[in-house]
Amino acid sequence: MSENRTALQIEVEECWDLLASATVARLGWNAPDGPVILPVNIAVEGRTVTLRTSSASAMTRQVDDSPVALEVDDVDGETRTGWSVLVRGVASTTFEGVDAGSSAEPWLDGAKPVTITIRPREVTGRRVVEA
Amino acid sequence: MSENRTALQIEVEECWDLLASATVARLGWNAPDGPVILPVNIAVEGRTVTLRTSSASAMTRQVDDSPVALEVDDVDGETRTGWSVLVRGVASTTFEGVDAGSSAEPWLDGAKPVTITIRPREVTGRRVVEA
Repeated sequence: MSENRTALQIEVEECWDLLASATVARLGWNAPDGPVILPVNIAVEGRTVTLRTSSASAMTRQVDDSPVALEVDDVDGETRTGWSVLVRGVASTTFEGVDAGSSAEPWLDGAKPVTITIRPREVTGRRVVEA
Repeated sequence: MSENRTALQIEVEECWDLLASATVARLGWNAPDGPVILPVNIAVEGRTVTLRTSSASAMTRQVDDSPVALEVDDVDGETRTGWSVLVRGVASTTFEGVDAGSSAEPWLDGAKPVTITIRPREVTGRRVVEA
């Protein structure tokens, strides 16, 4: 395994392109009992990242008006090369369709979507290439 | 896109198998200015996850003796199916080889490796399948 790798900063415009091309990201937040990371589907609209969950989950309760991290990457574990983009900002949650279904609906059926919007304060990216 | 998906809990033994099969994970911690997530290479030894960084980076300084989250996943963004495993625990850092190279060595060359060990207190996994 080559140890000759170089880390390059990814410019913010390309970070947004990479975010927009990703469908799966990981959302991180600081729960009362410590950090949590969960995979989420994201959408990029302008300079905002949104994601939808379908429940009053721990995520929904804990991230509202709180600092979060959102990460996308494409890394090759063997060569340890690839890229990652990190969005740090504040999340807010919007409950939609609260009158559209029963409160007993299981969360995976999407009947009660919650939209989490992340207002970025910092967007950074790093690409590691073989030198 | 099917909305008929089911979430299944992954038993802890299989979580460890999935962790052991992964080379790339994401480490999350709560930095002084909010959550951070970065991709890392991991190794699983027994019931401990270790990773190596090669510098006195922000990660190294901030995670020592602190709660962290470590996530691995394989998720299909289109079908929103796949699995993820989350390790929550406390990290500790060990500086090795401090006398093996110049302190001016660039961090990517691996001359001054730092080992971060995560002692898990909670290992959980979830698999989302089409119903």
